[in-house]
Amino acid sequence: MRWLFLLLLLVAAPAQAERRKVIIDDEGFALMHLMHLMLLEDPDIDVIGITTVSGNAWANRATAMVLKGLEIAHRTDVPVVQGATFPLLNSEALTDRWEALYGKLTWKGAWMKAWVEPTQQSTPPYFGPTDPVDLPGGNAKIKPSDEIAANFLIRMVHKYPGEVTILAAGPLTNLALAQRLDPAFAGLAKELVYMGGSLNPHRVLSDRSAADFAREYGNTPRREFNARFDPEAASIVSRSPWRKIIIVPVDPSTATQRSKALLARMAKVTIPDIAKFIKEMEPGFPLWDEIAAGVWLDPSIVTDRETVFVDYNTQFGPGYGDMLSWRASYQPGVGEQAAEVVRAVAPAKLEALMVRVMAAGAKRDAALSRAAAAP
Amino acid sequence: MRWLFLLLLLVAAPAQAERRKVIIDDEGFALMHLMHLMLLEDPDIDVIGITTVSGNAWANRATAMVLKGLEIAHRTDVPVVQGATFPLLNSEALTDRWEALYGKLTWKGAWMKAWVEPTQQSTPPYFGPTDPVDLPGGNAKIKPSDEIAANFLIRMVHKYPGEVTILAAGPLTNLALAQRLDPAFAGLAKELVYMGGSLNPHRVLSDRSAADFAREYGNTPRREFNARFDPEAASIVSRSPWRKIIIVPVDPSTATQRSKALLARMAKVTIPDIAKFIKEMEPGFPLWDEIAAGVWLDPSIVTDRETVFVDYNTQFGPGYGDMLSWRASYQPGVGEQAAEVVRAVAPAKLEALMVRVMAAGAKRDAALSRAAAAP
Repeated sequence: MRWLFLLLLLVAAPAQAERRKVIIDDEGFALMHLMHLMLLEDPDIDVIGITTVSGNAWANRATAMVLKGLEIAHRTDVPVVQGATFPLLNSEALTDRWEALYGKLTWKGAWMKAWVEPTQQSTPPYFGPTDPVDLPGGNAKIKPSDEIAANFLIRMVHKYPGEVTILAAGPLTNLALAQRLDPAFAGLAKELVYMGGSLNPHRVLSDRSAADFAREYGNTPRREFNARFDPEAASIVSRSPWRKIIIVPVDPSTATQRSKALLARMAKVTIPDIAKFIKEMEPGFPLWDEIAAGVWLDPSIVTDRETVFVDYNTQFGPGYGDMLSWRASYQPGVGEQAAEVVRAVAPAKLEALMVRVMAAGAKRDAALSRAAAAP
Repeated sequence: MRWLFLLLLLVAAPAQAERRKVIIDDEGFALMHLMHLMLLEDPDIDVIGITTVSGNAWANRATAMVLKGLEIAHRTDVPVVQGATFPLLNSEALTDRWEALYGKLTWKGAWMKAWVEPTQQSTPPYFGPTDPVDLPGGNAKIKPSDEIAANFLIRMVHKYPGEVTILAAGPLTNLALAQRLDPAFAGLAKELVYMGGSLNPHRVLSDRSAADFAREYGNTPRREFNARFDPEAASIVSRSPWRKIIIVPVDPSTATQRSKALLARMAKVTIPDIAKFIKEMEPGFPLWDEIAAGVWLDPSIVTDRETVFVDYNTQFGPGYGDMLSWRASYQPGVGEQAAEVVRAVAPAKLEALMVRVMAAGAKRDAALSRAAAAP
């Protein structure tokens, strides 16, 4: 029976060539991003690049943070490609006018100067789109690629047709540009997984942070920051011919939280350089992007999903950027695609997965070190 | 102590003059309407008129049904005043164009020709706005008032300043017209209670009818029929200077249902002529308007309420007619008013109230009969 065991082992063990390819398209927010780490640390995943975009922070700042994060994680092998600085039509000036007509937004990302109400979470410092970046603790030594994100995205799906998952966790500007640059783009990707949109989230957790974040959806169940920052891009991407779309809207996030306990569990199993940063992370945020990575790494964490046709409202009015969705036979049929929308996940399973991949990454690194040290 | 007891009794017993005045503004749907009955049968309530409007049915049809309902309920003393046939801007033709761009509506009221999907509830017959009305069982003998609803509404709030509650359960066209005819209108009413709008309802009941009705809000948590039928009217009314606004949106209705059991309980305690009709009512509908009447008759049935600023989206786009709401300090301040929005009610308490008022009405009628028969 020993041969059978060995054969099974051979089939089950993912060879280097079989690792699932993913490009992370994201706008960052801090030096280290748990979602990025989940994908970088999982030995079965091949992060073939990280593209940046403006959203929570301007693109140049997002790029600097990703570069620094990769240095800390010892993953300077991953190319970083900077993307769009500005949304297609939306802007900071238009957002000011919009708020005067339709009410204050809770979160405005790079355009955020202050919370409307006292808020538990810190307010990130405000910068202009071309302000020089000087990260606390110094910028990374590595540099981004000379390419532009949209071009990189197009090049990769042509190089690996049908193999590349695009995991987008910021505004969809880069993907919309790529699709209009090359109409074959979406169809050549394996799939699109994105964190964005909102169906009708309900508050699940009872602490102060959860209450604060509930302000974002309590009176606007269809509004979510990534889509609202660049509604036109979200609509273009929603009407593009992807082979498969998986959407993680706000809904499943209300049952999750980046708790001190979770951060401690992750810090305990990862390498010391990463652990140092994880320990210092601000707790209280829902797990948004981490759910998207988690759902892609292990679909069994999903407890409720639904297939609907999706688009976004691009009218400059009260519903600007709102998610639009239709059951089959109600959709208008103007290009909007069917998407699998994750309505709920099992938070404990997600947390266990997050800890598991961090441990797996540390184990891989140790093995690589041993291999490098071998005579 | 006997004098004190008598005094208390005198103070506590509502004299005829002290009954709470209400005008029902509604678009009807069937010969008898449980919400109307709740108010007509409660001996403490003075229904000073019923105004009609187009919505679920055209105004002429709504008027005919209300007249017939009053005859059945032996309440031909209540004036019926017909209101607006057409919404301010919206129309059947525009709705066809809208659906081509933005997807099919689940329910279109008077403009409904067929359900998009197979549906448990029956489809009401389709009529034109001026088609003659020929009710099954014959039209009522009594006639509506010669006045126009908006003028009647204005006249009543001037006659009884600060005393009249307006309970609106259809599109808000009449109220918007009244407000533009007379800017003092809203401020002279005691309060506005209306069934309309939607925050983000979640399905509570598990039967087929509840599943069917969930289609109306599952992908459009901010859309509700009354507001969607005349969005401009809903916005005008939301920006009018009412002393008080209580809104019953779709949200609390998902926990309620016009069940066979409830209809049987109501039929058992009411007068035979009403009972005959109640027994034949189609079950399965959520209790929408009945919650509005219930909340007004007995606020203790409310289990969750919130004060927010409210308006409606009047852009002819994907969110046309959607409810807009803001926590204080987020609202744009263009006239939108603070409103008490009912998020949840106790269904058992509501049902008990519905049965209680029917019994009280029957008891009142019996006492009146005895008084009339007395020598």
